Amino acid sequence: MTRNEKDGSLNLSMLMDFYEFTMANGYFSKGYKERVAYFDMFFRRVPDNGGYAIMAGVEQLVEYLEGLAFDESDLEYLRGAGLFCGGFLDYIRNFKFECDVWAIPEGTPIFPNEPVVKVRGPIIQAQLIETMILLTINHQSLIATKANRICRAAAGRPVSEFGSRRAHGGHAALMGARAAYIGGCSSTACTMASRDYGIPAAGTMAHSWVQMFDTELEAFMAYADIYPENCTFLVDTYNVVKSGVPNAIKAMNEVIAPRGFRPKAIRIDSGDITYLSKVARRMLDEAGYPDCKILASNSLDEYIIRDILTQGARLDAFGVGEKLITSKSEPIFGGVYKLSGIEDGRGNVIPKLKISENVEKLTIPGNKQVYRFYSNKSGKAIADVIALNSETIDEGAPYTLFDPEHTWKRKRVADFSAKPLLVPIFKKGKRVFELPSLDSIRGFCALQVDALWEETLRFENPQKYYVDLSQELWDLKYNLLREIAERQ
Amino acid sequence: MTRNEKDGSLNLSMLMDFYEFTMANGYFSKGYKERVAYFDMFFRRVPDNGGYAIMAGVEQLVEYLEGLAFDESDLEYLRGAGLFCGGFLDYIRNFKFECDVWAIPEGTPIFPNEPVVKVRGPIIQAQLIETMILLTINHQSLIATKANRICRAAAGRPVSEFGSRRAHGGHAALMGARAAYIGGCSSTACTMASRDYGIPAAGTMAHSWVQMFDTELEAFMAYADIYPENCTFLVDTYNVVKSGVPNAIKAMNEVIAPRGFRPKAIRIDSGDITYLSKVARRMLDEAGYPDCKILASNSLDEYIIRDILTQGARLDAFGVGEKLITSKSEPIFGGVYKLSGIEDGRGNVIPKLKISENVEKLTIPGNKQVYRFYSNKSGKAIADVIALNSETIDEGAPYTLFDPEHTWKRKRVADFSAKPLLVPIFKKGKRVFELPSLDSIRGFCALQVDALWEETLRFENPQKYYVDLSQELWDLKYNLLREIAERQ
Repeated sequence: MTRNEKDGSLNLSMLMDFYEFTMANGYFSKGYKERVAYFDMFFRRVPDNGGYAIMAGVEQLVEYLEGLAFDESDLEYLRGAGLFCGGFLDYIRNFKFECDVWAIPEGTPIFPNEPVVKVRGPIIQAQLIETMILLTINHQSLIATKANRICRAAAGRPVSEFGSRRAHGGHAALMGARAAYIGGCSSTACTMASRDYGIPAAGTMAHSWVQMFDTELEAFMAYADIYPENCTFLVDTYNVVKSGVPNAIKAMNEVIAPRGFRPKAIRIDSGDITYLSKVARRMLDEAGYPDCKILASNSLDEYIIRDILTQGARLDAFGVGEKLITSKSEPIFGGVYKLSGIEDGRGNVIPKLKISENVEKLTIPGNKQVYRFYSNKSGKAIADVIALNSETIDEGAPYTLFDPEHTWKRKRVADFSAKPLLVPIFKKGKRVFELPSLDSIRGFCALQVDALWEETLRFENPQKYYVDLSQELWDLKYNLLREIAERQ
Repeated sequence: MTRNEKDGSLNLSMLMDFYEFTMANGYFSKGYKERVAYFDMFFRRVPDNGGYAIMAGVEQLVEYLEGLAFDESDLEYLRGAGLFCGGFLDYIRNFKFECDVWAIPEGTPIFPNEPVVKVRGPIIQAQLIETMILLTINHQSLIATKANRICRAAAGRPVSEFGSRRAHGGHAALMGARAAYIGGCSSTACTMASRDYGIPAAGTMAHSWVQMFDTELEAFMAYADIYPENCTFLVDTYNVVKSGVPNAIKAMNEVIAPRGFRPKAIRIDSGDITYLSKVARRMLDEAGYPDCKILASNSLDEYIIRDILTQGARLDAFGVGEKLITSKSEPIFGGVYKLSGIEDGRGNVIPKLKISENVEKLTIPGNKQVYRFYSNKSGKAIADVIALNSETIDEGAPYTLFDPEHTWKRKRVADFSAKPLLVPIFKKGKRVFELPSLDSIRGFCALQVDALWEETLRFENPQKYYVDLSQELWDLKYNLLREIAERQ
């Protein structure tokens, strides 16, 4: 169905790969419908070769799963495909979500190979929800991760998300603005995101405003007259130094100051931002506006922001558009969703493994939990350990971490706290997770990124954060690998 | 408002940059509301340094403009901003779209600097619709362009769009599938796109299907049993040569052939696709299935497809996911929307120009039309000429083309047809354009790409297609430039 009964928004229940339906019908036909399966969503590498990613999109995943339903028009489409049995179509008509879902909360730094979403439920259902779990978490984690890099490059200066016009469709603009805010942006130009998510709206004037008037000065005076308290002049329509800044200062002198206000900012959107910002800063200071801020835009990202700040640009804030909303330098967050086990009907989990032709595509079998080890002394995150769900971590005893590839690399840690990262979101199809406010997610993200070592936060060649397996899980995986290899 | 009254889909009326509202309120306050302005959408360079792009997204732009309306919750949000005057809020409450809109039809090859959408209307309205015009056309043109490149690399072999899970949100999956079909893809894995746009659905099995069964052979037999007519085996869960293909052949022999069907295909999703396809081809041929196709997936794009085909891979079809749905190698289609003129109230258009600090950001002033010149002899496209709307092109006389940068580069053409590309979509807010079917857009695209010279179609270093200005428009632009320069 296209309409979501609850709020009228676009219902994405049918947004799934067609093979989810053919497989689901297959499980149904083969009597596997009720077999309980475990799936993990995880990713294999951090975009931009970064040291960490930021989890985002759980709220929209919850909305999707709570609204998951099919109506007669969906049924008609599926019947028309001529592939599905009547029993399966009835099942789809009466679909009721029954899975358990765990996820790492939004805003948490996440690392390759660890499960960030875990699903337990009837295979037919756990399979059907694959596409949207991946789409939702991949997209928002991609943008939150990029935003976090960009905001760190801005070194405390506010960054506004400006990218709607280059987003990949309406959801990308809306949810991208949300994810960018989680990652650290302070505002968005997207009005709809501001309305729906309470993100502060940012926006002043385009070049067209300046062009509409006979002169740049007239355009600035008119704008200052309407928004004297909140006026950012776009100064590059003709020439920043020769006309833009002088005209802005004139408007400040003649319209803003006489009414007792202070000018807010100027924006530079083209040219040599570093040079122009220095000249503009001097001109504004000399005119008596040392508090007037200078905002830069124009295809910025973390690399350019770092460079121009290193070169001494006098900038107070940034507007970041296309390179954030598309994560241009790496527009894919490669999360995958893999079967990790099935229950045997007697309460045991039979672990499952995928080998494939590429060693790096190996999966980790079994029903798992992820623990983040924090040093009690420094408060910093030491490592993540993926363990079997049945294991417990004794915080009172020293724990031996080891690299799952190079197992001779070992490290004994003590005086740590081990925090389980996967928290229950759904139990038997019912939500059991209270959705946090966007502001609290954003604040949590900042704190959690602070808990990483600086070496992990580097843009280039970050120190690899440890994501290890417990001894028990490691043994399980390698025994299973040997077993499968012997069977070939 | 979130709900679209007509079909319940997500209403994107509020998906606009906040500065569209602040400027619109400014125009309203300054009595400029009814001033008639002209805006052009155009782009500056082809993604991937290609020779052409493909226009797409007009249908969704039409839907947006037809549904453009604001409700009380939107008004409440705007009131809360504390920036807008009461008269403006009333105007927004009673908003009725009144602009004229022209666009180049979907599926047409388009080139840098030429207007692909033109808007004429009250400045306040023409400004408000900027964000969604750009978002819609940028996104779909990006994906249609990428798809066209990928399909040309596949050299006639069908390409299926597989990317939903890596799309930037739901719209990106849905509209991306639509755009990919326009560009030449033959099917999509996205069920919703198949349901809503009639695109053939493609999809078979994931690794999880294979893992669910005790052995790969059991998984294949079960699948073949359910879909004997339409069975594509995914052969790389364990080992393509040692187990995948042999097990697939066993299932063909024991389940498919005995029922009088022929096996459809196998799919290889990892490893050395070229090598594996050659081995698999031999094995299938020897088993008596020379008609069983081999489908490849796994992070393909036009470059990899061209390479593996050059290396002699024995492949019949491709599934292309993340690198298509995100246009990974260049995920931004940089369309912009610029003021080109305002009417003086006596029927004259005052042309407008933006200079800025970057020469390449210069705009082309005036109310314009774009003509595509076709050779009557070869049927090929010779050049596009941007002319003033008031000009007529005499097809009976020779026409002198000249490079707008290097004006000494001239070429006289005769025996041509000049086809105007911008067609009316809205007149005074009413749609006057009949939306073509998706299949006819796709067919038109293929024909129009065929009308380009091979040199323009090259992936690397394509010959630059001529986009020239008429003498009259060139004179107008350079006179205006001089005038502004003298004013500085």
